[in-house]
Amino acid sequence: MRWHGDSLELLDQRLLPVEEHWITAEGAGGVAQCIRDMVVRGAPAIGISAAYGVALAARHAAEEQWRAEIQQALEELGASRPTAVNLFWALQRMKRVFEECSTLKGAVARLAEEAVAIHEEDLAANLAMADHALEAMDASSPLSVLTHCNTGALATGGYGTALGVIRRLHEAQLLEAVYADETRPWLQGSRLTAWELARDSIPVTLNADGAAAAILAQGQVRWVIVGADRITANGDVANKIGTYSLAVLARYHGVGFMVVAPSSTVDMSLASGADIPIEEREASEVRAIRGIPLAPEGVNVYNPVFDVTPADLIDLIVTEKGVVRKPSRETMAALFS
Amino acid sequence: MRWHGDSLELLDQRLLPVEEHWITAEGAGGVAQCIRDMVVRGAPAIGISAAYGVALAARHAAEEQWRAEIQQALEELGASRPTAVNLFWALQRMKRVFEECSTLKGAVARLAEEAVAIHEEDLAANLAMADHALEAMDASSPLSVLTHCNTGALATGGYGTALGVIRRLHEAQLLEAVYADETRPWLQGSRLTAWELARDSIPVTLNADGAAAAILAQGQVRWVIVGADRITANGDVANKIGTYSLAVLARYHGVGFMVVAPSSTVDMSLASGADIPIEEREASEVRAIRGIPLAPEGVNVYNPVFDVTPADLIDLIVTEKGVVRKPSRETMAALFS
Repeated sequence: MRWHGDSLELLDQRLLPVEEHWITAEGAGGVAQCIRDMVVRGAPAIGISAAYGVALAARHAAEEQWRAEIQQALEELGASRPTAVNLFWALQRMKRVFEECSTLKGAVARLAEEAVAIHEEDLAANLAMADHALEAMDASSPLSVLTHCNTGALATGGYGTALGVIRRLHEAQLLEAVYADETRPWLQGSRLTAWELARDSIPVTLNADGAAAAILAQGQVRWVIVGADRITANGDVANKIGTYSLAVLARYHGVGFMVVAPSSTVDMSLASGADIPIEEREASEVRAIRGIPLAPEGVNVYNPVFDVTPADLIDLIVTEKGVVRKPSRETMAALFS
Repeated sequence: MRWHGDSLELLDQRLLPVEEHWITAEGAGGVAQCIRDMVVRGAPAIGISAAYGVALAARHAAEEQWRAEIQQALEELGASRPTAVNLFWALQRMKRVFEECSTLKGAVARLAEEAVAIHEEDLAANLAMADHALEAMDASSPLSVLTHCNTGALATGGYGTALGVIRRLHEAQLLEAVYADETRPWLQGSRLTAWELARDSIPVTLNADGAAAAILAQGQVRWVIVGADRITANGDVANKIGTYSLAVLARYHGVGFMVVAPSSTVDMSLASGADIPIEEREASEVRAIRGIPLAPEGVNVYNPVFDVTPADLIDLIVTEKGVVRKPSRETMAALFS
């Protein structure tokens, strides 16, 4: 994303990799719509975009009602998507700054500063997570990994969470191969992850989600590495639909399962994954691709966007604050309370 | 499929559910091409089509070289696809009849009769399998099931294998709901299974393959029911890519895992699934849908069409000859040797 002070440019992720088209959001409403419609997606990127949305609301607010306008922006942005907690975390930060402002002029400056800080801190967190992960993996020779969805520069403030770890493995010449689940229905793997990795000349092999089990059975993959949309106090993880399946398969095959996410993804206010609201999206995402029907018209569809992986299937949760091994209420509390 | 004596009509399964277009194959070469290009797919349907292909070769053979022409047809059809053993089984039956023929006229009549018999026996086997499965399931109240790929009338001589069991559950008012994996990359679930079930007013819900684990975790599904392309002497099963994943998930969630296939799918000459040749198809099946690119041009793809589910993850193998519980070398030999 590109921040210009009075507008936010977002690369339209719905059109990648066929077309690189930037959309300019000039107000909070435009940013909220971009989040709802998945022009921008990925938990950290949603949080950062929302923060910029609040800054834009201040920038464009009318002097006589600026407080009401910013308040409304906070609410509209907060209602854009339900599962990724980074959204609410970022809006909470923006709200605290907003509440300290006594003039519109001050709000314009301070809210923009705070949004930029959220963005920069996310990028720094990505780099720190990659360091922590490599230390925890302690790899002495190149290994293969499998990932799901997109957790790269497109999904974050830059570099990536799970994909950041994969980038760092590659930089350290410790990466043999990356298998990328195509990640139906939205195809973040084929459209975004394969695009990001190919641009950086990182050796990626794309596979249908259903082929992941056969790949793990072949024994080359040592780690499944994924991001997260929300991590609860007991270490349960909500992430892109299909993640839970990979966690079960990794355990069955003796493959490590690592979740990489900034601490803004951790929600210590929820006891377990059962408390996370799981978004369901439209049937059309499964029934058609780019308007081309793939299924009988009107057929019933179950399209949950996320699933919950219980903590006991997770070997490592990596955040910029450090690593949680064998996540549980106790090990999570040790790092996050 | 429709047999006319001098041609075979096949419903083009690549165009469903958008278009119902029948292709007429007038010779063995045309049938082989339809199998290679997946106009017709599904292990039993491939076998039946190939048998009709041999009958067509006889029908159109030149008097002076009919033996060579039929022999060539057997070879060309045998090379059309590698994994489903029903193809080789059907061709073996046709070859035995062919070798008993002393005149072209006799061959024309007897090969057509044999192909029709293979077709009719497959349909009868489907019905018998549904009976055996319902007896083995011993359901007293309606239950939900999950299936993968397409194993219905389109994949068989009619009625279906796994989908035949699901039809019979519905007829017996024992079916609450069917979840159908969309089954990437070829989308047999969305395009074919959802189409067949919707036409018969059987309550189907389509889901992305990656959502199956979340569905099983919800606890409503009692059985995962799938077909097979080859079953080896120890009870290992090759079936559509993604089947093995479901078997691991079913075991993890305490859900029954049932394989339904005619005995023509059983290959007692292979000791285990490791001996089954697994077809890989073109990268374009994953990279694009109907010519629309989904991934960066030229990205590396791993596209195995089948995977192998080890016998120890299978609760029931249902054939027309009876049911194998807890398949193993011993329990398989008891029914098939």
